[in-house]
Amino acid sequence: MESQGEEYRDALARRQRVLAPTYRLFYDEPLYVKKAEGVWLHGADGRRYLDAYNNVPVVGHCHPHVVECIVRQAAVLNTHTRYLTDAPIELGERLLATLPREINCVTFTCSGSEANDLAMRVCKSVTGGQGAIVTEFAYHGTTETLAGMSPVTGQATAHGVFKARIDPVRNDATAFALQVEAAIGQMRAAGIRPAALLVDTIFGSDGVVPGPAGFLQPAVAAIRAAGGLFVADEVQPGFGRTGEGIWGFQRHGVVPDLVSMGKPMGNGHPVAALCARREVMENFARSTRYFNTFGGNTVACAAALAVLDVLERERVLANALAMGERLQRGISQLAARHACVSSVRGAGLFIGMQLQPPQLAARVVNAAKREGVLVGTAGGANDTIKIRPPLVIGADEVDLLVSGLDRALAAASPRDG
Amino acid sequence: MESQGEEYRDALARRQRVLAPTYRLFYDEPLYVKKAEGVWLHGADGRRYLDAYNNVPVVGHCHPHVVECIVRQAAVLNTHTRYLTDAPIELGERLLATLPREINCVTFTCSGSEANDLAMRVCKSVTGGQGAIVTEFAYHGTTETLAGMSPVTGQATAHGVFKARIDPVRNDATAFALQVEAAIGQMRAAGIRPAALLVDTIFGSDGVVPGPAGFLQPAVAAIRAAGGLFVADEVQPGFGRTGEGIWGFQRHGVVPDLVSMGKPMGNGHPVAALCARREVMENFARSTRYFNTFGGNTVACAAALAVLDVLERERVLANALAMGERLQRGISQLAARHACVSSVRGAGLFIGMQLQPPQLAARVVNAAKREGVLVGTAGGANDTIKIRPPLVIGADEVDLLVSGLDRALAAASPRDG
Repeated sequence: MESQGEEYRDALARRQRVLAPTYRLFYDEPLYVKKAEGVWLHGADGRRYLDAYNNVPVVGHCHPHVVECIVRQAAVLNTHTRYLTDAPIELGERLLATLPREINCVTFTCSGSEANDLAMRVCKSVTGGQGAIVTEFAYHGTTETLAGMSPVTGQATAHGVFKARIDPVRNDATAFALQVEAAIGQMRAAGIRPAALLVDTIFGSDGVVPGPAGFLQPAVAAIRAAGGLFVADEVQPGFGRTGEGIWGFQRHGVVPDLVSMGKPMGNGHPVAALCARREVMENFARSTRYFNTFGGNTVACAAALAVLDVLERERVLANALAMGERLQRGISQLAARHACVSSVRGAGLFIGMQLQPPQLAARVVNAAKREGVLVGTAGGANDTIKIRPPLVIGADEVDLLVSGLDRALAAASPRDG
Repeated sequence: MESQGEEYRDALARRQRVLAPTYRLFYDEPLYVKKAEGVWLHGADGRRYLDAYNNVPVVGHCHPHVVECIVRQAAVLNTHTRYLTDAPIELGERLLATLPREINCVTFTCSGSEANDLAMRVCKSVTGGQGAIVTEFAYHGTTETLAGMSPVTGQATAHGVFKARIDPVRNDATAFALQVEAAIGQMRAAGIRPAALLVDTIFGSDGVVPGPAGFLQPAVAAIRAAGGLFVADEVQPGFGRTGEGIWGFQRHGVVPDLVSMGKPMGNGHPVAALCARREVMENFARSTRYFNTFGGNTVACAAALAVLDVLERERVLANALAMGERLQRGISQLAARHACVSSVRGAGLFIGMQLQPPQLAARVVNAAKREGVLVGTAGGANDTIKIRPPLVIGADEVDLLVSGLDRALAAASPRDG
């Protein structure tokens, strides 16, 4: 930290004093950020950092159209869904237009956590069951219910929650479906009725495992045969991250019962949603009302509408697909030159680079930051470098990202250099 | 609806098609809102409506300083708390400065629901218990955990959740503490260890019951004696609503273990927080980390900082106290003239007007809307008119509100007229 000045040390100390001790900063030497634009975060140290970690600013940090739409709406009307207003209607229509026609109604929330938590309330109410299946290193959110369904955090799974293992390398659809069936069997043996299979449609926290196209089909068939519902958690993969479509589940040729979405939906503005088959929500609505004060407020909807505008106008999905290929090619070339890279996986602009030995990953993340490139780790052993730049990244920036990772791999693992 | 045109009918029909069937609109003839400023909502019908319902736009709809601060920050940096940034530090310092010194650390979330849900995770983790006490008609949020602690919604309380009755009229502190002690007894008889007493510091959903100053003291002593923690839910009363201080618990001379806040915190921008005694969060942090993607992001913090600015600069609390007295006086005069008003209660600008017979309340709410005044209902029997204007309301507007309610009472209950 000697490289940083007094303002930096002062900010760190003040933060320590006021924020709860549950907070953690990234990096051995945390990054003090002052501004951001496009794919760049600008540090208080006067350097710029290529953001290849944050999947929230999907159309680039501080995108002017998104900022303008937020401002315009915030100055005129910011209110909730118990009045008739235009923004949630327009957003609902445009969101549903991106989804299969079976997914035909929407509920707005503030966060992916609220969307997943609501999904679980719906599944339990509709099936009458309490049993849920998640992957071995799943992460689905921060509420009490979801903390019990997020084994990657190290917390014990809650009663009624069962795990199905994703093999990061073998990636076999049948093997995964057998895991799901085994979980259903354990559930039944414990006298618990199946309610839901809740999975990311690219297995981010399990080590960035995309699965081959169609991977999810047999597992989805298994949960449905057992009377449960399939919830696609699109909080990470959604809005074009996986390249071939706006939603991750499209790669798998399945139509979920419920689709949760969040993080990139407002490019940083807190907005999220649960989209669903209407008959499922009608069943839920028979016993339950749901109102979310900020969910679907006019400004949150304006932010999400602006993101959809940019995705269309700037042909962001096509860019994500092309840049994803360029990036995967670049990372694969690194794998050929650095013996520590044991596997490269991904879809679109969501790429995992698995390292050996596992503890190398944290060193590479810190070395990459010193090289001006921001990445993170994923996987049960935290052995996979998680690479997720904004979808508007350009070819030159992809090349900078690859060369930065190249230097970081060399620096963190000198034998490879 | 014949009074409204084609655009209105079209918007209603489109909304019906895309939003989930759990959604409900206020009023027999829903209000189609196009813009808002100060205490006024402007309808598509060309009329303006005095907003005496929404406690979110605490400094007035679309307050220019709040809008400006959101814009300025959104254009420069919108990122999360795993980087070092200034906004959450500054907000943490300024929030904690409004709280007793024992409450000395903060965790940011997106909504009051997320704050209350986290509070329950903390209480259960720290006490090792699962038992919680809420009031008979409590409402604490939308997550699965909180739905099971919100009996006013009509849902069954969850396992481990026990109710203590608030008598809207008698308001007796000792009687309430006896209810809490009885709940602790039931809990223990069921083999459940007490974790928390979670209550609003003005009992809004129980019928807008402020309790006399000090009301909560014996109940708080009872939960602590049983090993549980006291969580003050300030999502509704906080930020000056109850007039005498910025927080509702201050009226009661108690210092909570945890304080949740939300709704008005960003004047409509999704931002909320859980403030706590550091030793409680340190205990929680031993087993758990907590990260909330949007919670405490730089723009959300800018919105909340702007609200604190306005509260100070415009002397909003002093206004709330003065206007609250004027409003209570006006409502009490209505009670003297309308036999159907059985009780008037409140603190600051949170006022309840209980009606007899109970079903009159819904009629008065709809009549008031026709008179250009927006209010809602509260209480186990929905028999209480809930009156909560923005805290920046002026004397003339208070008088308009009272006269509008006067006409609504006369219209809904002609015998009184």
